Amino acid sequence: MSEASDVLVQRDGAFTTITLNRPRRRNALSRAFLLQLTGAFREVAATDARGVILAANGPVFSAGHDFGDMAGASHADVRDLLRTCTDLVGTIQSVPQVVIARVHALATAAGCQLVAGCDLAVAAESAGFAAPGGKGGWFCHTPLVAISRNVGRKRAAEMALTGDIVDAATAAAWGLINYAVPDDELDKAVHDLLQRATQGSPRSKSLGKQAMYAQLDRPERDAYTYAVEVMAASSQTPEAQEGMRAFLDKRHPEWPA
Amino acid sequence: MSEASDVLVQRDGAFTTITLNRPRRRNALSRAFLLQLTGAFREVAATDARGVILAANGPVFSAGHDFGDMAGASHADVRDLLRTCTDLVGTIQSVPQVVIARVHALATAAGCQLVAGCDLAVAAESAGFAAPGGKGGWFCHTPLVAISRNVGRKRAAEMALTGDIVDAATAAAWGLINYAVPDDELDKAVHDLLQRATQGSPRSKSLGKQAMYAQLDRPERDAYTYAVEVMAASSQTPEAQEGMRAFLDKRHPEWPA
Amino acid sequence: MSEASDVLVQRDGAFTTITLNRPRRRNALSRAFLLQLTGAFREVAATDARGVILAANGPVFSAGHDFGDMAGASHADVRDLLRTCTDLVGTIQSVPQVVIARVHALATAAGCQLVAGCDLAVAAESAGFAAPGGKGGWFCHTPLVAISRNVGRKRAAEMALTGDIVDAATAAAWGLINYAVPDDELDKAVHDLLQRATQGSPRSKSLGKQAMYAQLDRPERDAYTYAVEVMAASSQTPEAQEGMRAFLDKRHPEWPA
Repeated sequence: MSEASDVLVQRDGAFTTITLNRPRRRNALSRAFLLQLTGAFREVAATDARGVILAANGPVFSAGHDFGDMAGASHADVRDLLRTCTDLVGTIQSVPQVVIARVHALATAAGCQLVAGCDLAVAAESAGFAAPGGKGGWFCHTPLVAISRNVGRKRAAEMALTGDIVDAATAAAWGLINYAVPDDELDKAVHDLLQRATQGSPRSKSLGKQAMYAQLDRPERDAYTYAVEVMAASSQTPEAQEGMRAFLDKRHPEWPA
Repeated sequence: MSEASDVLVQRDGAFTTITLNRPRRRNALSRAFLLQLTGAFREVAATDARGVILAANGPVFSAGHDFGDMAGASHADVRDLLRTCTDLVGTIQSVPQVVIARVHALATAAGCQLVAGCDLAVAAESAGFAAPGGKGGWFCHTPLVAISRNVGRKRAAEMALTGDIVDAATAAAWGLINYAVPDDELDKAVHDLLQRATQGSPRSKSLGKQAMYAQLDRPERDAYTYAVEVMAASSQTPEAQEGMRAFLDKRHPEWPA
Repeated sequence: MSEASDVLVQRDGAFTTITLNRPRRRNALSRAFLLQLTGAFREVAATDARGVILAANGPVFSAGHDFGDMAGASHADVRDLLRTCTDLVGTIQSVPQVVIARVHALATAAGCQLVAGCDLAVAAESAGFAAPGGKGGWFCHTPLVAISRNVGRKRAAEMALTGDIVDAATAAAWGLINYAVPDDELDKAVHDLLQRATQGSPRSKSLGKQAMYAQLDRPERDAYTYAVEVMAASSQTPEAQEGMRAFLDKRHPEWPA
């Protein structure tokens, strides 16, 4: 079971922070908790927030699914849980806001998948990342989908096969996260990057983010065919025209709501 | 409008330099200018030049498309412009020569796409790269196609969402370019890399470059199926046989024209 | 011709080392030698070894195919040779064991393809990697398939077009291998990484490795669809249940054979 207070949603200026708040359960991603998180993202999607910070309370960012829920669970129940988790990652990629993970501590298994699935991620130097199924009896198949789309093949294999913790600096060097920063600078670094990533027209930015995920996995020629159509169509929007005219008039643009 | 002198084409030994020469317009990629550039690449393609250097004159490498041309342009005209730009990148990848970008200064939006679309790229340390649509009203959808096929996902997202300038050293660390070098060593570094990249049989190299783009986006097994056929067929060419015999005879090979 | 002693197979504890032992031929990958190697991997696949080390004797790791065999060979014979080599790489990725390349010296052309095709790779600092066809008459088409799936596009192009040797430290920075270590620490580093990569249930690990290759090249959504099914089904295995119960009981798991 999850409680209403398991997911904290707090608006502060242009940004909304969604916080995993099951510290005693190491922010374990139960089905109910995942549905709450997905619901929180859907609600924020309908607001005028420009960016979302995915944060967590407690000694770990998230330990992934909870073995207490899963030992003995049926095939159908596990399948449903994994689909629910994948739906959360898909929701994060589809909401109009830029979503940044604020990783203050260990993110493992589906917790690591969550971070890898956000648009951007910044971690404290003391944080770590792992796909620990590799050292147990149940391989981290779905987390590896997200990890292997952010880091090179040999490094993805190392994370998945060893299950060992990769420190934040290494994760940044490999491209799993954008930056690793001293622990006491985490909030500043998260806000700085999110601030930079949420300038400009919100509508243009949303389309840009969503179109990015639509083209990333396509062969280059198909991706161009798609991107040309999106970019040509979006040239006719009020925000594109305003942006160009403001640039030519040397004034600050004003974005349509 | 573009003028004949907007694109400079100069042959020097085995290499031809194609130079963007609209410095007062920040080498803005108008439709006419793009067509001239594509035409220049097609003409060089028919020569016996071994390599092409894509360079630029003026304070920026290229600022991308010109908002002066695009504000108020129709959907059809913008679509045509973007397709013309994508055709240029496709032409660069299809010509038989190795194409290296010589980036002496800022390359933004479609200017960054051009660099990302070249086979190789070397930049001066003071150069920079950006997809600035992310901070305006018109997202850099098509430049992101090229950028995201050179750098990891989190870094592509950062470039596209922030629109901020990435310096040359960071671009090299991320794989967007091959090397960042001190400004006064740029020409030397470009020539050194192009020299190294144009050794051997020209015909074998051309096929190799073109086949590379044909296999890059395929699933591994399909890519092998394709590459085995290309490599087996090319084993029967005079240049493959000459290369092997010269190696076995411990002499320098002589390549068929 | 190859001899029985061309491929050494030695079991030591949980690991089997398969050694390329044609030092006088620079471990050239003739058709017979490739078939022997594939046979060795297939035999080890049927044992209870947890990991496989692919090593080599002599002054080079492997120089790739032997021009002495190939000069004048027919299209059909070359095609058969290249397919045999690709089958070896496919076999390495399909065996249930984790396979790590121990690269003590130069790995070129199909030798570099072999390393790139292993699950993991560690090299001595004095080792190097090259796709030398780029500087000859016969481009390294098939090696480039493997190389370009491990390193970024600009770096793959540089390796393939120049044919120059990339040192081990650079190869590690680019992601072609996992680590470059001082020459006298090579064995220790290989064993440490393989030890870490072979913890946990063998059956779960095998499925994990094989499923990784099945999802890597799929679009993200397809990859998730596949991975969810594999992960849900594997949750019902004795090893998954034992792993979860042992974790909850705070005891060491015991894996089914």
